[in-house]
Amino acid sequence: MRLVTFEFGNDEKIGALVDGGVLDLASAGTRANRPVPDSMQALIEAGDRAWDNVRALIADCPAEDVVESPKLLSPLPRPIRLRDASLFHEHMEIALGKIGKTMHEEFRRQIIYYNANHLDIYGPEAELPWPARSNWIDYELEWACVVGRTATHITPDTARDHIFGLTIFNDWSARDLQLPFMECGLGPGGGKDFANGLGPCIATLDEFDDIYDLAMTARINGEEWTRGTTGSMFHKWEDALIGLSADYPIRAGEIIGSGTVLSGCGFELDRKLAIGDLVELEIEGIGALRNRIIADNRG
Amino acid sequence: MRLVTFEFGNDEKIGALVDGGVLDLASAGTRANRPVPDSMQALIEAGDRAWDNVRALIADCPAEDVVESPKLLSPLPRPIRLRDASLFHEHMEIALGKIGKTMHEEFRRQIIYYNANHLDIYGPEAELPWPARSNWIDYELEWACVVGRTATHITPDTARDHIFGLTIFNDWSARDLQLPFMECGLGPGGGKDFANGLGPCIATLDEFDDIYDLAMTARINGEEWTRGTTGSMFHKWEDALIGLSADYPIRAGEIIGSGTVLSGCGFELDRKLAIGDLVELEIEGIGALRNRIIADNRG
Repeated sequence: MRLVTFEFGNDEKIGALVDGGVLDLASAGTRANRPVPDSMQALIEAGDRAWDNVRALIADCPAEDVVESPKLLSPLPRPIRLRDASLFHEHMEIALGKIGKTMHEEFRRQIIYYNANHLDIYGPEAELPWPARSNWIDYELEWACVVGRTATHITPDTARDHIFGLTIFNDWSARDLQLPFMECGLGPGGGKDFANGLGPCIATLDEFDDIYDLAMTARINGEEWTRGTTGSMFHKWEDALIGLSADYPIRAGEIIGSGTVLSGCGFELDRKLAIGDLVELEIEGIGALRNRIIADNRG
Repeated sequence: MRLVTFEFGNDEKIGALVDGGVLDLASAGTRANRPVPDSMQALIEAGDRAWDNVRALIADCPAEDVVESPKLLSPLPRPIRLRDASLFHEHMEIALGKIGKTMHEEFRRQIIYYNANHLDIYGPEAELPWPARSNWIDYELEWACVVGRTATHITPDTARDHIFGLTIFNDWSARDLQLPFMECGLGPGGGKDFANGLGPCIATLDEFDDIYDLAMTARINGEEWTRGTTGSMFHKWEDALIGLSADYPIRAGEIIGSGTVLSGCGFELDRKLAIGDLVELEIEGIGALRNRIIADNRG
């Protein structure tokens, strides 16, 4: 399933990407007398039977319930929590090298992460306001795991069952705000919290032959800047789920970012974005997350 | 007003601390034909008229609606976001000194913070499970500002109007997990995210003569370990609200922690907590937040 949230009047609905558009799951569910939870968070929390239900609706796919080209939002427009973990290591080694530091061995020993801002999420095609205080905005090409089940002490044998699905994550960064902020040792905070990009869909595991062999690309105004692979992760999603559930529950609907793939940002490539740029992150089997940078006109 | 959330069967209600107990605001509101939003988050978002309404109910305070000793929860049991900012500086200088570091000048220039875990909140009297992986748990005596209005670009002349109220924050920390984690430069993450303590109430500004002249104390099993004052903040709440709203909106219901007051944790005092300890943080005009540490029996 490739699941989406789309705009519907002043409201939101959940759907699935199908031939010809988006299957409106509420509408199809009512027609088939198989009611579907009315938000992505509720669908995730509802568990296997609800997910099987949605699979059956997609298999059936009544043409009357296919919306041709609705405005997509982030699949989880208001995730309950968003962390970004350091699962790819090559990017981190290079980025730290550029500011005269080396990568601490602790990155290999455990899942290092920071809590990101889960309230300012930019979905597909959303315009991204360049923070007025910054002269140096950057993309970061990551992907993200959406947690499917609330659990503590996840073990290796069942770790994969805790993945609800996968999406694309743009960890927007204002380098000129981030670098001095991070000198203080409390993480990137104000250098990254102005925006996080998530979308266009959540692809469940049955969409993939091998989730660790997917091409990841970034294009700026159509030009390819980054080409990487999910296969270069040092820690896999299963490792992340085990590590992050060691002390207290990881919850259904939480989002875990992967960190940046090798060469997955302008900072590594010595290239800079500008207002007006179209930033397009693509991952095989998930799709493309496109956002145009605009000047910030707020306040 | 000193506002609380309390348990009511399997549900939660909001109330106000009054002589003899807690005024049940929903019940008093129905009786007076002045309906009150049914959660603290909803009350905060409802704005001035709703707050004046609650003030009127408290002034009236019908005895039939006073519950003698309900079980209090955190006043915001599920805050929409929780950040911890470095507003006190003396603690940070000492704590960094103990690990051979100095405090970066950026702490003075701007509001440095990290995003904390807003999902695992421990209210008054809640038992605090000692993380199984840790041998060194600690308290941190902080207070926290609850944001009253969603806004971007807050200015000095109106900053104080954006404070809904103040509460006590125990930034529980597992030092043996925190120190290696922080070496990676992405913040405290796994060293602090297992628990955050908030409560017992949210005290609105009309409860205080001077919010920057309040005694802050910590007692462990009745013995005073910490005595400080809110007056020693380097950055005030108004500075924090201005700084944190510079790039994107700060939202009604968000919680901003102050960082730790001088000598406000065992780490600074070379003292350690143990399972079974009763940790009591008190701030003049707000009350006391008490939690007993227990062994973690989960999973």
